Amino acid sequence: MLNRTELVQSIRQKKSYLCVGLDTDPAKIPAHLLSEPDPVFAFNKAIIDATLEFAVSYKINTAFYESQGIQGWESLQKTVAYLPSDVLSIADAKRGDIGNTSAQYAKTFFETFGFDAVTVAPYMGADSVEPFLAYKGKWTILLALTSNKGAADFELQKTGSEYLYEKVLKTAAGWGTPDNLMFVVGATQAERMASIRSVCPDHFYLVPGVGAQGGDLQALSQAALNKDVGLLVNVSRSIIYASSQADFAEKAGAAARAYQQEMMRFLL
Amino acid sequence: MLNRTELVQSIRQKKSYLCVGLDTDPAKIPAHLLSEPDPVFAFNKAIIDATLEFAVSYKINTAFYESQGIQGWESLQKTVAYLPSDVLSIADAKRGDIGNTSAQYAKTFFETFGFDAVTVAPYMGADSVEPFLAYKGKWTILLALTSNKGAADFELQKTGSEYLYEKVLKTAAGWGTPDNLMFVVGATQAERMASIRSVCPDHFYLVPGVGAQGGDLQALSQAALNKDVGLLVNVSRSIIYASSQADFAEKAGAAARAYQQEMMRFLL
Repeated sequence: MLNRTELVQSIRQKKSYLCVGLDTDPAKIPAHLLSEPDPVFAFNKAIIDATLEFAVSYKINTAFYESQGIQGWESLQKTVAYLPSDVLSIADAKRGDIGNTSAQYAKTFFETFGFDAVTVAPYMGADSVEPFLAYKGKWTILLALTSNKGAADFELQKTGSEYLYEKVLKTAAGWGTPDNLMFVVGATQAERMASIRSVCPDHFYLVPGVGAQGGDLQALSQAALNKDVGLLVNVSRSIIYASSQADFAEKAGAAARAYQQEMMRFLL
Repeated sequence: MLNRTELVQSIRQKKSYLCVGLDTDPAKIPAHLLSEPDPVFAFNKAIIDATLEFAVSYKINTAFYESQGIQGWESLQKTVAYLPSDVLSIADAKRGDIGNTSAQYAKTFFETFGFDAVTVAPYMGADSVEPFLAYKGKWTILLALTSNKGAADFELQKTGSEYLYEKVLKTAAGWGTPDNLMFVVGATQAERMASIRSVCPDHFYLVPGVGAQGGDLQALSQAALNKDVGLLVNVSRSIIYASSQADFAEKAGAAARAYQQEMMRFLL
């Protein structure tokens, strides 16, 4: 578990605000791992070992585990248990429902599986998010602006004088604090990052979309970094699938290191 | 699996558009079931047996299973497998993410667990919903207007001349057809139902919020029924927890029957 102060310290120490996304697809695992009792966990363990020096957070995309059924949840459980306590573990689950149901989802990720943070969808409003925020020492990471094309359909529609995603940022900022609430802000929208930063100057932003989705690390970092860093950049595919061969972990470590080396420059 | 014609036939035959919500909370299961190897499945099985005559659909609220960890997913898997093929099985999961991730969620519920339908959150737009719609013979049930207080925060905000939920209805109606797409419309907003029906005259609406959440069955039915019925009303707590004693299944059956008897009048 990492509070805000500890997270900032870890970033300063590792000179990295990299989050490694474990979107582990069994179909993309190197062939030599398929004889392992749990190939997904074996893959994740090797990736974590190879990247830990360069990353402060790991994001487990629950969809890739759920699609494998019960075996997938076992791989997920082993993976989150394997993560050291000094990295931020994120369940990228995008949950959200009426209060009594959101309370069950919060229990799922914070208690049953022991994550530090979970991503939550904002559509259903305050009472769908509050059960997550009610957990002391845990983080809620709310979707604001996402990195996909479909962001144009609703997130980028105007409500009054502002975009829906801006309304989400402003409204939700009143539900939590910079100590228990972060926002997802898509990096492929880097040109918007400066104005998004001005809406919530103190909150951490989790930025996906760098790498395979094409976001520009330098542009977004310059616009998004605040005095306490305030930024986690997630990279999934271009790290974990840097190689599909026996050297996958080594290549993943090298890719993570390259991101860290770039981030180090922006932290100066 | 039920296509639209079969679903309408089933409703006409049972004279019911009742969906029973299996929001099964292990803490609320009658004590005598706790010695069963899988108390949640034993409870669900008894509820299904007692209500099958009066219900055309069952909605499994995934949060209540996920919060129990791997054991919960086993209970979920057994429950969906136990449902007969002539009822509509719904995973109330409210998923939605970028395309490659939504594809994994669609696989989870349609293939791995074999549901007929899954609820999906609209916030991230078209490409987050399309992987669900791409499954032939399956249903996507998109959130439009929900029954909770938080609906006011974003769903009931105006975008241009219309509410966000109206924009969701109109936009998403172009992504699917009345044969593969339904919408969630909260019953506690029954006064809005007539105008909501006019936006999508042909689609099925899944209406939660009757019973424990206080929606009015008569008012919403009169406003929402169309020539092909076009309506599923979900009731969870006031059926499955009608009694906390040994007679829970009998009382659940009686509660389901009471809803069916009322629905029968509106179907005439």
